[in-house]
Amino acid sequence: MFLKEFGEERIIRELAEKFKVRHPRVLKAIGDDASVTVQKGGQALLATTDILIEDTHFRARLTPPCLLGRKSLSISLSDIAAMGGSALFFLVSIGFPGSVKKDFLDSLYKGISGRAKECGALLIGGNTARSGKITVSTTVLGEMPVDEVVYRSGAGKNDLVWVTGTPGESALGLTLLKKHGAGAIRGPFKKAVMRHLDPTPRMKAGRALAVKRLATSMIDISDGVLLDLKRVIEASGAGAVVELDSLPVSTEMRDYIKLGKRPFAADLILSGGEDYELLFTAPEKNTPRISALSKELKLRITPIGRIVDKKKGLKVIGPDGTEIKIKSLGFEHFK
Amino acid sequence: MFLKEFGEERIIRELAEKFKVRHPRVLKAIGDDASVTVQKGGQALLATTDILIEDTHFRARLTPPCLLGRKSLSISLSDIAAMGGSALFFLVSIGFPGSVKKDFLDSLYKGISGRAKECGALLIGGNTARSGKITVSTTVLGEMPVDEVVYRSGAGKNDLVWVTGTPGESALGLTLLKKHGAGAIRGPFKKAVMRHLDPTPRMKAGRALAVKRLATSMIDISDGVLLDLKRVIEASGAGAVVELDSLPVSTEMRDYIKLGKRPFAADLILSGGEDYELLFTAPEKNTPRISALSKELKLRITPIGRIVDKKKGLKVIGPDGTEIKIKSLGFEHFK
Repeated sequence: MFLKEFGEERIIRELAEKFKVRHPRVLKAIGDDASVTVQKGGQALLATTDILIEDTHFRARLTPPCLLGRKSLSISLSDIAAMGGSALFFLVSIGFPGSVKKDFLDSLYKGISGRAKECGALLIGGNTARSGKITVSTTVLGEMPVDEVVYRSGAGKNDLVWVTGTPGESALGLTLLKKHGAGAIRGPFKKAVMRHLDPTPRMKAGRALAVKRLATSMIDISDGVLLDLKRVIEASGAGAVVELDSLPVSTEMRDYIKLGKRPFAADLILSGGEDYELLFTAPEKNTPRISALSKELKLRITPIGRIVDKKKGLKVIGPDGTEIKIKSLGFEHFK
Repeated sequence: MFLKEFGEERIIRELAEKFKVRHPRVLKAIGDDASVTVQKGGQALLATTDILIEDTHFRARLTPPCLLGRKSLSISLSDIAAMGGSALFFLVSIGFPGSVKKDFLDSLYKGISGRAKECGALLIGGNTARSGKITVSTTVLGEMPVDEVVYRSGAGKNDLVWVTGTPGESALGLTLLKKHGAGAIRGPFKKAVMRHLDPTPRMKAGRALAVKRLATSMIDISDGVLLDLKRVIEASGAGAVVELDSLPVSTEMRDYIKLGKRPFAADLILSGGEDYELLFTAPEKNTPRISALSKELKLRITPIGRIVDKKKGLKVIGPDGTEIKIKSLGFEHFK
């Protein structure tokens, strides 16, 4: 069934039924002019919004709708994780052409719903519209004690710079998707492809780093390790040195490196985007507790460099201790 | 200057500067992964989201960018008004083609900023993306005491049905815009055209009706008087009778009626959308206080019908007391 035969009223009614919310803090979810929720006094309310647009952020033929749904929510959840918060509620606006089939929307919602349940977020509002291109806009609300919030601006001199997981895999996955099409989902690098299509927002890690007060600053890696680290040091009035040899490399990335193909792994790891891993800074004394957290969460957390004086800027150091020109790493966002 | 030469980083930096927020409850607006605001305990948090997409909701050549900015925020503010709340914060995601000029974005922001100031809403977050069509997605957060919230579901039998302003003007304006192009902004019906391009969210009226506990149910008229009234009676388990002769008619609409042109005024008033006026219900005993409020706000507020038993459904009654078939009014949303 095509959605043009379906009508917005019915789509919203189905949505409200699928995402039926029973929660003492939700007085009204979908079904009125605005959602109504009850706030805890003195808590920080976190709010973030993202938009995914067909042919800008994804290609419909390379992206199963269920995974598009998951990702659209994951990228906003990741922003909440990067503040150290817990996700509470979310709203979603979806635009699509009338020629889209009902199955597509069902899969999209299934993806959103699955990710929402995993992260404990409740749908409280939404909106649908006709659109030439598929467009998914999400807004996530989170909460946490005011004094636990981890901003980008807290990095201190000599702090270590850490990353969760193995950044660069998403960019590797995208490279392979572009080259081999949707078949790459079943190819030898399928894990990397799935890291691109279905990134994991690091909710538990972000929240734990905030509660245990282990991180002085934090950001999620949406635009690449170096660009996001640059944002942290700019906000903190600091510089940073990244050691190329310290970068965590996944098994898949290692296999890819063995093939000796372009783009080079260092490009992917340092400037590949959309990993939605966390990058954070912490004083060296916190290292044992961060290692313990890493074990507890079964999540790789790796120190990749150090915060230095502002005037040193942002540097990448090779295995022999010499500086590597960032431009030659294919990192083109900088001017 | 074209925006493709501009870069997202710089756009967001400019945005953060233009909308610089100093407020004791805003700990972090733009410039981190998520915004951080402080909540009042026990208050209801209202949240609503809308999306305007070029060629679905507006035509770029008929819509000055400043007014597009105003309207994109107004329609979400209107949802907060329809609950009886005050607007607090908002987030905005904007997608646009790289060929759009910097001036366009400046005007769009100016429009958003102007409307935000008028309604006391603060920008706390946002997002920009490349997009084939101009896309503006807004999320507005509002607040109010839990026991003052006015839902759609509270309409009681024999309550009067009221509307603010003169619904139908927006649809008249759109009709003229489509017919005469952007020149209609300076034509004889320019007020109606401006009601379409720059609707006023009824923040003061909505809030006052809630604080004074005058309304038993409320909705904003986004899809037409009858369709939105239908939503109220469905949520309230009631029926409603609308008297054609009671409908408020603006001077412009009267002049238009004199011309004897299609579409008929009744079509426009009953089923024209995008007025963003409020429709609410209230027991008859509240009439003197509603009239007093109308005078105080210098805003026309008119009773147009009455809530009746559910099994009577939704009826429109003509001047001679006979029922008018809704279909013949051009009201095609129903099946």
